[in-house]
Amino acid sequence: MKEHTFALKGTIVHTPTPQAFEILEDGFIVCRDGAVAFLGEALPESLHGIPVHDFTGRLIVPGMADIHVHAPQYGFRGLGMDLDLDSTWNTWFETYSLPEERSYADLAYADQAYDRFVDDLLHTTTTRLCAFATIHRPATELLMEKLDAAGFAAYVGKLNMDRNSIEGLQETTEESLTETRRWLEETCGRYAAVKPMVTPRYTPSCTDACMEGLQELIREFRVPVQSHLSEGLDEIEWVKSMKPEISFYGQAYDMYGMLGSDVPSVMAHCVYPTEAEFALMAQRKQLWVAHCPQSNLHSSGSAAPIRRYLEAGIHVGIGSDMAGSNTLNLFRAIADCTTASKVYWAAHERNGDPYAPKTYLGLSEAFYIATKGGCSLWGPCGSFEPGSFFDAVVIDDRPLQDLHVRPGRQRIERAIQQSDDRHVEAKFINGIQVL
Amino acid sequence: MKEHTFALKGTIVHTPTPQAFEILEDGFIVCRDGAVAFLGEALPESLHGIPVHDFTGRLIVPGMADIHVHAPQYGFRGLGMDLDLDSTWNTWFETYSLPEERSYADLAYADQAYDRFVDDLLHTTTTRLCAFATIHRPATELLMEKLDAAGFAAYVGKLNMDRNSIEGLQETTEESLTETRRWLEETCGRYAAVKPMVTPRYTPSCTDACMEGLQELIREFRVPVQSHLSEGLDEIEWVKSMKPEISFYGQAYDMYGMLGSDVPSVMAHCVYPTEAEFALMAQRKQLWVAHCPQSNLHSSGSAAPIRRYLEAGIHVGIGSDMAGSNTLNLFRAIADCTTASKVYWAAHERNGDPYAPKTYLGLSEAFYIATKGGCSLWGPCGSFEPGSFFDAVVIDDRPLQDLHVRPGRQRIERAIQQSDDRHVEAKFINGIQVL
Repeated sequence: MKEHTFALKGTIVHTPTPQAFEILEDGFIVCRDGAVAFLGEALPESLHGIPVHDFTGRLIVPGMADIHVHAPQYGFRGLGMDLDLDSTWNTWFETYSLPEERSYADLAYADQAYDRFVDDLLHTTTTRLCAFATIHRPATELLMEKLDAAGFAAYVGKLNMDRNSIEGLQETTEESLTETRRWLEETCGRYAAVKPMVTPRYTPSCTDACMEGLQELIREFRVPVQSHLSEGLDEIEWVKSMKPEISFYGQAYDMYGMLGSDVPSVMAHCVYPTEAEFALMAQRKQLWVAHCPQSNLHSSGSAAPIRRYLEAGIHVGIGSDMAGSNTLNLFRAIADCTTASKVYWAAHERNGDPYAPKTYLGLSEAFYIATKGGCSLWGPCGSFEPGSFFDAVVIDDRPLQDLHVRPGRQRIERAIQQSDDRHVEAKFINGIQVL
Repeated sequence: MKEHTFALKGTIVHTPTPQAFEILEDGFIVCRDGAVAFLGEALPESLHGIPVHDFTGRLIVPGMADIHVHAPQYGFRGLGMDLDLDSTWNTWFETYSLPEERSYADLAYADQAYDRFVDDLLHTTTTRLCAFATIHRPATELLMEKLDAAGFAAYVGKLNMDRNSIEGLQETTEESLTETRRWLEETCGRYAAVKPMVTPRYTPSCTDACMEGLQELIREFRVPVQSHLSEGLDEIEWVKSMKPEISFYGQAYDMYGMLGSDVPSVMAHCVYPTEAEFALMAQRKQLWVAHCPQSNLHSSGSAAPIRRYLEAGIHVGIGSDMAGSNTLNLFRAIADCTTASKVYWAAHERNGDPYAPKTYLGLSEAFYIATKGGCSLWGPCGSFEPGSFFDAVVIDDRPLQDLHVRPGRQRIERAIQQSDDRHVEAKFINGIQVL
C-alpha cells in the first residue's frame, strides 16, 4: 500500500509519557493508512521511495484534543471575562452565553458563525474535539457537517436543557428527548470521524426525567456522554439543593450511568471534588476529566487538582472551554495548565492541605494532557508511537527564533508560549492533510 | 500654531479614573504641541481645517507604560517558564537570565538583539517604559539610542551588580560606581525623551558600599531609581539574612533614599509586603509599584495585593517583566491583571485574611493601571484628558469582530483579550507619529 504511505521530515516532538518530551532533532514519521508506521532518524530501506514532505527546520507535534469547547460561544470570545465572580452564572450566562446560543435557532446565523469557528479552528493545533453545540438539532447537524468537511475528528453534542434556561432556549422534556433521538438516528454513522455525544448541559439544566430518557438513549445507541462537573462552589450548592438525596455532585451523573460506567464520559472542570467524589472518579475507568485552566482561573481564581487525578490514574485531557477562555489555541492552554498548577500549589501548600501536590505540573505533563491525555478518548492517539492514529501539526517556529541556535526542547517551549495561527503551517488528521 | 496641531478620529477609549471606561463611539482627539488640546464628539469651529487622521472604525487608546521590562531578556522569552518554583533563582537565573545578560558585553550582539527588542516593541501599545538593561555601560547607551531613534519615552537603567552574580557578569564596587557616574554624565540630557534611571538590580546584587555610592549619585544627578522588592518569599529571607538590622525588605532601599523619598522610585513586584512595609510604602508619595501579574503567577503561583495599594493611594503601574512573562503585549498584561486579582481574592478570601480585597480588579481598573497608573510617572499622561502628553495607539480591531455590531465597551474588552501586533495600526508618542 505504498500509495497510502508517506513521511514527514522535521524536528519531531511528542510525549509518549508525561515525564519528558521525546525529541528527534531531525527525524521522520511515516504514515500508512492513517496510522503511524515508523518513527526514527532515518527511513529504513523498505520505505525508500515513499513521498516525503520536507519540513526541515520546523516542529512537528501530535495533533491536540480540545475535549471541552462550546462552539456557539466563539462569537463572543473575550467578552465578560472580568464579570463578578459571585454572580458568574447570572451575569455572564444571561448577558452572553444564553442569548448567543439562542441565535442558533436561526440556521442562517448558525451557518455563518460555525463557518468562522471551523475555519479558525483549522489554523490551530487541534485535530480532535468534544464540542458542545446548542439545543438546536438542525444547527448541531450543520456544525457536524462543517467539521466533517474540514476533516476533523470530533464528538459533537446537541444540548439538553429542559429547565433553568431563558425564554427561547428551553425545551420541554419530551421535545428534548424526541429531538435527541432523531439527531442520534440521523448522525450515528453518517460522517467519517464526526460522531454524536449525548450532552446534558449540566444537572441544573436537566430534569430527572430528561436524564432518565438520556440514559435509555445512551444504552440504545452506545454513544458517549459529556457534561460539566463541580466547576464552581455556588453551582455545587445549587445541585445539592435540587437533588438532596445525593452526597456529592458526581452522583447526579453516576446514577444515570454517565460518569464513566456505561459509556466513555467527559466531565469538564472538576475543580472542587469532595473526597467521596474523587474516590468514585478514580473507580470509573471510562471517565475523562476535561481540564480548563484558563476558564477556571477566570471563573473562580482557582485551579483543579490535576496532579491528584493523574496520580489516581484518571484520564485527563485539556479543554479550551471557549468562551470561558479567550482562545482556541491549545498551546496557550498548555501554558495556562502550568500556571494554574502553580496557583493550585501555592494556595494549597500554604494552607497545609494534606492533598497539596508535591510539586506543580511541568511543561511535558501539560503537553501530554493536551495530546495523548485527551486523544486517548479515541484510542491510540496523541503521540507518534507506531500504531497511533496519524494526527500531526507542523509549526513553523522560525519567526520566533532569537540569535541563539536553540535545541528542540527550547523550541517547543517557545512555540507553546509564543506561537499563534500564523505559525501553523500544515495539519494532518487520521493521515489526511487538512491544512 | 496650527501647523503643530492635528486630530485623530475614531472610537476613543480611556480611563480618566479607574472606575469605568470613558468611550466616545465616534470622536476626535486633538494634539497641539505634543499634548491633548481637545477631546469630543465634534471639532469646535476654531479647529476646523486642521489635519485629521481618520481612523473611523478603529479603537484609539492611550499609549501604555511598561514600567518593568528587562530589555536584554527578550531573546529568551518563553523559555524556562515551568522551572521549579523553589529553585527559580538558581535555575532560571543561572540557566537563562544571567548568561544571556553576559552576552551584552559584546556590543555587536547587543546591537542585533536590541534592534529586535525595539522593533517588536514598536508594534505594541507601549509608548513609555522603565527598562532594565545590563551592567554594561556601552550596551545600555546603545539601547537608549535605539529607543530614542524609535521615538519612545523611556527610563533606562545600567544595572549595578557587585555581588552574587556569575563570572563575567559582576563588577567591583568601584567599577560599578565609576561606570554609573560616566553613564549618567553621558546620558543625562542627551536624548529627547530617553533618560537614565539608577538601577541597583536588587539588594542581593548590591553591597552596602555600592548602595551608598548610588545614593550620592542620585542626589547629585537628580535621577529616579528602580529595583525589585518583595517578589519571592525565598528572596525576602535572603535579604533578611544579608541585612539583619532591617525589619522588612523595603528598608533596604529606604535607608538609601530609594523608596520614593528622595526621588521617584519604581519597585517591581511587591507581592509579599509585611504590614510595616505596606505602611511605609503608603507614606512614600514618589513610589510606583510595577505590578507584573503574569510573572508573579509564573514565579510563585501568587499575586500582589493591588487593590490594597490602590486604596492606600500608592501609585501602581504595570510591567511585562519580560522575560518573567512571555510577551511585551500589555493588553495581555491587562487581562493577566484581572486574572491575578481573582487568584489573590480566591486565595485570601478563603483563608479568612482580613486584608482580602472586597472584590477583585475590574477591567477598567486594570486598563487604568496600564495607562494612567504607570504613565503618571512622567506627569499628566495616560489618558486623553486635555493637557495630557499626547500618546495614542490605534487598534484596528475589525478582524476581531463577530457577527454582532458591538459597542466600544465590548470592542475594547475583545481587543484586550484578543489583539496582537497585527492589530496595532498607528502609534503617537508626545504627539509624534512613530508607527
